[in-house]
Amino acid sequence: MKIDDNFYMKLAIDEAWKFQLLTYPNPAVGCVVVKAGKLLAIEAHKEAGLSHAEVNALKTAFLTQEPNSLLKVLEKSSEIHDFLIKNHNGFFEDCEIYTTLEPCNHHGKTPSCAKLLSILKPKRLIIGLIDTNKIASGGIKTLESENIDVTTKVLEKECENLLLPFKSWQNKTSIFFKMAQTLNGSIDGQISSQRAKLYVHTLRDKIDLLMIGGNSVRVDKPILDTRYVKGREPDVFIYSKNKAFSQAIPLFKVPNRKVIISDDLFKLLDYKFVMVEGVYTLLDILKDKLDFVVLIISPKIRNGVNSVNELNIDFEILHENYLGDEKIVFLKRRA
Amino acid sequence: MKIDDNFYMKLAIDEAWKFQLLTYPNPAVGCVVVKAGKLLAIEAHKEAGLSHAEVNALKTAFLTQEPNSLLKVLEKSSEIHDFLIKNHNGFFEDCEIYTTLEPCNHHGKTPSCAKLLSILKPKRLIIGLIDTNKIASGGIKTLESENIDVTTKVLEKECENLLLPFKSWQNKTSIFFKMAQTLNGSIDGQISSQRAKLYVHTLRDKIDLLMIGGNSVRVDKPILDTRYVKGREPDVFIYSKNKAFSQAIPLFKVPNRKVIISDDLFKLLDYKFVMVEGVYTLLDILKDKLDFVVLIISPKIRNGVNSVNELNIDFEILHENYLGDEKIVFLKRRA
Ligand SMILES: [Zn+2]
Ligand SMILES: [Zn+2]
Repeated sequence: MKIDDNFYMKLAIDEAWKFQLLTYPNPAVGCVVVKAGKLLAIEAHKEAGLSHAEVNALKTAFLTQEPNSLLKVLEKSSEIHDFLIKNHNGFFEDCEIYTTLEPCNHHGKTPSCAKLLSILKPKRLIIGLIDTNKIASGGIKTLESENIDVTTKVLEKECENLLLPFKSWQNKTSIFFKMAQTLNGSIDGQISSQRAKLYVHTLRDKIDLLMIGGNSVRVDKPILDTRYVKGREPDVFIYSKNKAFSQAIPLFKVPNRKVIISDDLFKLLDYKFVMVEGVYTLLDILKDKLDFVVLIISPKIRNGVNSVNELNIDFEILHENYLGDEKIVFLKRRA
Repeated sequence: MKIDDNFYMKLAIDEAWKFQLLTYPNPAVGCVVVKAGKLLAIEAHKEAGLSHAEVNALKTAFLTQEPNSLLKVLEKSSEIHDFLIKNHNGFFEDCEIYTTLEPCNHHGKTPSCAKLLSILKPKRLIIGLIDTNKIASGGIKTLESENIDVTTKVLEKECENLLLPFKSWQNKTSIFFKMAQTLNGSIDGQISSQRAKLYVHTLRDKIDLLMIGGNSVRVDKPILDTRYVKGREPDVFIYSKNKAFSQAIPLFKVPNRKVIISDDLFKLLDYKFVMVEGVYTLLDILKDKLDFVVLIISPKIRNGVNSVNELNIDFEILHENYLGDEKIVFLKRRA
């Protein structure tokens, strides 16, 4: 296997995917630091408000060489920035830094990464995708004006795939479909690994609205909460013509939650970030409106309810991770 | 993400899986070379008769520093061994070498890797799994007697999974099941990517016997050959009580092939390496006899024939690769 720019960029991409959707409303970004040929850091942006991928990677890289540095205890992005600017002492001058996305150029919740990098003066910056987001873009200009060697468009397509969820929520309502099934497509497969359950609850904490079919509510009597992560409880949209539901169903008892019972899909647009938890029927109804699909696959074969309708959809696999024993597959519909 | 022994061993494991089954009758093995912290090589054993993973990795590592060395044109394992012994000049003394399996200790088709390494004297050898194969084992002893620092059992479970197919064919008939399906388990999904087709033909070239159900033969009229790789044509076992088949079906016209039509599964044991190309029905019949399952998944949803029987099987995912746009998943049945 070739150990080249693509290899290191792929490490950054894979790391970023581990936090995909969890960075909402920020993009998922990964960063790798290689110093004089030595791989020192593979990091990602983990959550909005926390430090950017570049800052995490610079911190990790610096600590490999100075493990007892005061930097170790710094968590706030601005503090890490300040520390590195004061104490870098040329450390990054023989570093090659890989980022999946052009470093941000605006001082938002944290100072600009492009500014920080232009001070640390790495030997080379390798960027997967050029940022077209007007607010944050311009990082390359900032870097090149400091004579830093910038290479762009390394694994650009893969970096674009990584950014797809972010693009979907930037200017409009983002709607994605979450489905769980067995290897053979049986939808009776319960999610079993604790990590997969945690992930779903973490997603619910990020979204504004959770959509579910009326039939699922009547049969499964779900609670649809975020108890594993003690998060915010999303509003629930029950897609149903028939408005009669037993108020004893646990989802109605979750505090601070609005429950909408409707068959008017237009109401989804009142929200910013919508997850549909459904099966093939709901997928059929919504397929033209979805930005992406999150499929959790349990490695079992089970006899059970399956695709009984006339669905024909071609997907592209954006990425896959393991969640404990299960798989999570991110899919994009093929045009 | 931590960059430690596990990280580098994982790179070796993933590389080895790319050649899983293709190394038959040898084990799939991967090897990584890190010199003074710099990642120089990620290689694998690719095919029986070709050089071992360690030799490929040592060659690649040496060439990164001396790209114009004569070594570049050497392909034969014994020649690479000889070259490295004569010309290493201490190159490997600051190297850490990761192998998924204890280096071989016997001079087989190629000289012993343990012997070669004990001459090159790397700083440290990190071994995933200790070899229990009586013929090739003892590598660690050879290395330690030369005072080389050896660390064992790094990602041992993953290295064991990698070795599972090899273990299955070592002392008995190995039988594995190859199945293709869509995301939702529809078996009407044709394998579409050229790389997946090539892989299946390469597998057919390795096996002795290809088993298929009588119904599939009657309906699909397959050829079941290795034309994409111009390989050896495996014998075919058609599982069927009814012995009447039209001799016009292409599989009967492939030269140098024996076709067995039988419902006596005991006949499978006349062969060493058997691939069953089937669907859920055949999986149900054979499930207790299978060593592992190779599942090719096409990223589509299709309405079609699915699990209509009462299969309930729990698997462990051993590994996954991409084959073009499709996925290949290696599964082991859970005990
Ligand atoms: Zn930034
Ligand atoms: Zn060897």
